[in-house]
Amino acid sequence: MKLSPQECEAALVDLDGLGRPTGLFKAQHQTAVQCLRQRFTLDSRAEDPSRARALLDAAGIRQRARIESRNEFPTAAGLASSASGFAALAVAAAAAAGLRKTPEELSALARLGSGSAARSVPGGWAVWENESARQVFSPTHWDLRFCVAVCASGPKQVGSRDGMRLSRETSPYHAAFIEQCRRDLPAALHLLSARDLPGLGALAERNALRMHADALAADPPLVYWEPATVACLHALHELRSSGVAAWPTIDAGPHVVALCAPEQAQIVSDRLRSIAGVADVLVCAPAGGAHLLP
Amino acid sequence: MKLSPQECEAALVDLDGLGRPTGLFKAQHQTAVQCLRQRFTLDSRAEDPSRARALLDAAGIRQRARIESRNEFPTAAGLASSASGFAALAVAAAAAAGLRKTPEELSALARLGSGSAARSVPGGWAVWENESARQVFSPTHWDLRFCVAVCASGPKQVGSRDGMRLSRETSPYHAAFIEQCRRDLPAALHLLSARDLPGLGALAERNALRMHADALAADPPLVYWEPATVACLHALHELRSSGVAAWPTIDAGPHVVALCAPEQAQIVSDRLRSIAGVADVLVCAPAGGAHLLP
Repeated sequence: MKLSPQECEAALVDLDGLGRPTGLFKAQHQTAVQCLRQRFTLDSRAEDPSRARALLDAAGIRQRARIESRNEFPTAAGLASSASGFAALAVAAAAAAGLRKTPEELSALARLGSGSAARSVPGGWAVWENESARQVFSPTHWDLRFCVAVCASGPKQVGSRDGMRLSRETSPYHAAFIEQCRRDLPAALHLLSARDLPGLGALAERNALRMHADALAADPPLVYWEPATVACLHALHELRSSGVAAWPTIDAGPHVVALCAPEQAQIVSDRLRSIAGVADVLVCAPAGGAHLLP
Repeated sequence: MKLSPQECEAALVDLDGLGRPTGLFKAQHQTAVQCLRQRFTLDSRAEDPSRARALLDAAGIRQRARIESRNEFPTAAGLASSASGFAALAVAAAAAAGLRKTPEELSALARLGSGSAARSVPGGWAVWENESARQVFSPTHWDLRFCVAVCASGPKQVGSRDGMRLSRETSPYHAAFIEQCRRDLPAALHLLSARDLPGLGALAERNALRMHADALAADPPLVYWEPATVACLHALHELRSSGVAAWPTIDAGPHVVALCAPEQAQIVSDRLRSIAGVADVLVCAPAGGAHLLP
């Protein structure tokens, strides 16, 4: 089996299987699969290979594998590193094993590593429904910016997977959240199609805050936020009051992602960078999906 | 009509008409009613007299009134100043007019000024249901401390009244919140009766966070919190991990109230005071209701 490094740029509308438009940033991840001995390293650190192995098994790869993964973003910090990582692994593993798979099959394969990885395969604006995700608008459909305010440096207290289970099992709001997401999805697609930034921005903010509200209502409560998260929300509210069109979304972690037009990205990222507790601001744009590097 | 200064110590289980145990602190408020000319001042500043006038009308006081109110807490900042103020006014106005009213009638009267004022009349641990509140446990039933971390100095962006209406009308979680409160009330009374601090603390935290989650889910979203609010929540979580029994509750504003035993109040208030953005920490205890000063 040959070495197949792979680069993945994460999908930009991240619907979490729940119709939730989040994860609005570009991530890069490189994965090499080589069949020397069973091993999984992430940024040169050994990792538990069980989820990666499940993905290889499902791809029909029976051999032992050596998987090396490199991540440009902080790992397990709520910046979708496992989404981009497992999307990259699905594409790289299929190529390394010489398998021909459709984009839908690759997306379904990535999902076995991490649910949200399914939507990182197709690129552009993707919708994840059931087993796999599909692209609904290409990366060039709409030139937007996503200013990612990194509001904590360490790993999350509660992983996305455990957090989602806790909300599902104990939040009295979870059924209403899922129901709301079903209404939000067609509305989001319509606003995307019309390139309506105020409409999509307000929808993304409402939807993300309702996801966090669902988590807050869990037992025990899940507080994903840091002090800087709240400061970013207030700062974006104030920016809008002063005429700067920028809306927040927040994935299952403390980081705030501001949606804005390219010409506002400088003022928005400068404002977010000035907030105490914001370690960095990364400005991203719609990008392509998981693909093999030449 | 004679001058009737009145001192009110706010009720300690604040159920907001929704079964929500919050507002766990003592407030003092002095109100004088005198019938010289129609006037309403709060801390010597002229105020809109319409709500106070409605209360006087309902009490059967037809004369013009001069109302002077003094407040020990920041006004309109989410520290229940209107609850203690209107409770004081109801008791003072009835006395000034020479009316004999039962505690329930005084509670119902206070409610016309501010909903939460109804539960500030009886004192001790009070339950507000429908038109009026009643005391369920006396102030001496359980010696607890409430460490109020003041997390902002200015008035709230959205008043309690408008905020509650917005949640009711636009939050997809509101029906589930009300339903949950109906379950929480008997549970809270049982835990109070048993003086079960871990049980009541965890219930108060869950209930308060679900109220804030309901507000976050409104359209537009209501973010009552400040960065220091989140820092206090995390600090109390860490204190509990290290064996200090202290739980947060948060009224419709940014301030965090920590419940703890008297012997832990020093360590809890010191920890909260060390947090950036916490302007002050007030340590309170269960107290009596609205009463006339000698």
